[in-house]
Amino acid sequence: RPLPWGAGYAEVINAEKSEFNEDQAACCQISVRRREPGLEEDEEWLILCSTQFLTGHYWALFDGHGGPDAAIIASNYLHYCIKQKLEEVVGGITEAQPPMHLSGRCVCDSDPQFVEEKHIHASDLVVGALENAFQECDEVIGQEMEATKQTGGCTALAALYFQGKLYVANAGDSRAILVLKDHIVPMSSEFTPESERQRIQHLAFLFPKLLDGEFTRFEFPRRLKGDDVGQKVLYRDYFMEGWGYKTVEKADLKYPLVHGHGKQARLLGTLAVSRGLGDHQLKVIDTNIEVKPFLSCIPKVNVFDFALHDIKEDDVLIMATDGLWDVLCNEEVAHVVRSFLAENRTDPQRFSELAKCLVCRARGKKRGHQWMLDDSHEASYDDISVFVIPLHNREED
Amino acid sequence: RPLPWGAGYAEVINAEKSEFNEDQAACCQISVRRREPGLEEDEEWLILCSTQFLTGHYWALFDGHGGPDAAIIASNYLHYCIKQKLEEVVGGITEAQPPMHLSGRCVCDSDPQFVEEKHIHASDLVVGALENAFQECDEVIGQEMEATKQTGGCTALAALYFQGKLYVANAGDSRAILVLKDHIVPMSSEFTPESERQRIQHLAFLFPKLLDGEFTRFEFPRRLKGDDVGQKVLYRDYFMEGWGYKTVEKADLKYPLVHGHGKQARLLGTLAVSRGLGDHQLKVIDTNIEVKPFLSCIPKVNVFDFALHDIKEDDVLIMATDGLWDVLCNEEVAHVVRSFLAENRTDPQRFSELAKCLVCRARGKKRGHQWMLDDSHEASYDDISVFVIPLHNREED
Repeated sequence: RPLPWGAGYAEVINAEKSEFNEDQAACCQISVRRREPGLEEDEEWLILCSTQFLTGHYWALFDGHGGPDAAIIASNYLHYCIKQKLEEVVGGITEAQPPMHLSGRCVCDSDPQFVEEKHIHASDLVVGALENAFQECDEVIGQEMEATKQTGGCTALAALYFQGKLYVANAGDSRAILVLKDHIVPMSSEFTPESERQRIQHLAFLFPKLLDGEFTRFEFPRRLKGDDVGQKVLYRDYFMEGWGYKTVEKADLKYPLVHGHGKQARLLGTLAVSRGLGDHQLKVIDTNIEVKPFLSCIPKVNVFDFALHDIKEDDVLIMATDGLWDVLCNEEVAHVVRSFLAENRTDPQRFSELAKCLVCRARGKKRGHQWMLDDSHEASYDDISVFVIPLHNREED
Repeated sequence: RPLPWGAGYAEVINAEKSEFNEDQAACCQISVRRREPGLEEDEEWLILCSTQFLTGHYWALFDGHGGPDAAIIASNYLHYCIKQKLEEVVGGITEAQPPMHLSGRCVCDSDPQFVEEKHIHASDLVVGALENAFQECDEVIGQEMEATKQTGGCTALAALYFQGKLYVANAGDSRAILVLKDHIVPMSSEFTPESERQRIQHLAFLFPKLLDGEFTRFEFPRRLKGDDVGQKVLYRDYFMEGWGYKTVEKADLKYPLVHGHGKQARLLGTLAVSRGLGDHQLKVIDTNIEVKPFLSCIPKVNVFDFALHDIKEDDVLIMATDGLWDVLCNEEVAHVVRSFLAENRTDPQRFSELAKCLVCRARGKKRGHQWMLDDSHEASYDDISVFVIPLHNREED
């Protein structure tokens, strides 16, 4: 598939340190068929020739775990789910304020006021469509993988340029940022067992059977041992952002529901992410405990309105899997982006070259048996995938 | 009780428009007894004479509903719960990094590293103590009101100055802001059926029986009617920040779990707040549906570290119930604060006078049958309570 408006993409499999790739990427145009308001499905076919399309541009990254299968299905289906969900609400999208009734018929004179009062805009329908599309895609993956006896899951980070706005929907630990001339705009935040600890612990509080007596829902700074029993140690429960001291009972020696810190944090000792698609069959090893109830497939959607910003020639959207962000922070990536684009102003392939450059930075260089970054920190051993999407001279619909 | 360090307080009952007051205020010093680490309770009594105290300063506002009873109990108990919870963790509070074990004994050599890795600071123990204190106070209120056959609930906004930091814990729709020389620092956010819609809808999704078939968990821009059945109308479910269209079924005509907009928003058609204390017995009128499962008594705690800021002479903390904030925004309040304090630099009662001034502003003036603000908007008809707490020259422990 051709990249819309010359965006750049690069990936490297396990930093070329093995052959097993779990990252997947997708990009395409999304054509949303406009329905004539007030026409039934069958009447509509009569005027199909006059039907107009709204065009969106879509890029997505999927970071698989437990195999590449879920990521592959998601990369083949998510854009279709988004197209479908957008078409379901397209009648409300073309005006700034969506009508209370999709048909456009006004049942109650004050309907527009109710919609106004709730501050519902066309962009809210796109956000809702993306939220519903992720949920739909998760169901498709569940059915598909059950039918084919495949397993595994994936994170999903999707960007949609539609009607003059950029929507970034994220479920997992990939990240998207806008690198603008003067500043960086984060377009996503990461969902991990650590960042979603309270949601996960709360679920275990509401449904203790989900832990089947094998895990403790409490968080402790480290795994407890026999010597800790009877002592008061630091802990957190679901309702706490702060910490307290708890007298350790024998049940607290069980493995914690959320455990570890940073990249080592795990949900049920099993997963490093708390949102994403798939994992319908995933069980904690050697148990009957399902992981899926603790996972969410719902993305957080951030919106960037181009009408409110003066976009410069070198402004870009950077999307990348955690392989990049584990070793490079936003500021480091922005620095590479700005200096690379300034030095390569005329190269028609400069966005692809920049994507490669970012991937190579995170992959590092081999020194002896280790892969090292320029600053002699350890490089990324994960799959690394990067999109560089120019924001200037974007195609207008 | 005397106000610590000369803070100002003022209140007005229903803007003096009736005699029924549901607001309550409290303020006091909190003395937290330090325990000698490693000593048992009974040994400790032997050295009580050498025991030191840590002193905190506490201010709180409670806005009652369904009668003043819960607010009165909360104003008498919350500071005691906070003192108790602070004493339970005081052994960990006096050092910058709390020990893994409250006893101070090190079970595992790397314990300090685990605590370090989790970024646990003494202030996290204070946050945890406040979270636990609200929960404890809610239980006390539940028992007390059951025993005395009282009913009702209240919001709670508590400020604690302790060990050089200001902690503001909020459960409800009161608000605290710092008015500093150059800017405003919001120290709380409001918890209402609208701001907590997704949490509330999600609970109804997980436990549909809580609605007893009488309510719909979906949100619509307005209450639906028979004419809407079969049509596609705007809606939101628990997982949506955006909006979608849903084909209306008969069940959607039920009263919505969260309904209305702004000050009219209601939980189960009953309550205007979604967090607070009390309401253990509250049922939806003419039904057996309990409201309490949808309420949270857990505060969100914000911390302000005075060591990181240069506090000027006229810098103050403003705490007020919704009676003030319904008619005055943060900027308007800050403007009144700054100009009043600049004009009354020598008055020893200036903070109390400022509190009165703010209350009078929100109460407005009677013109004919209506109470009006200076800008000829309608004034507040609610109870109004305001604390003005100077931050400069604060007592150090």
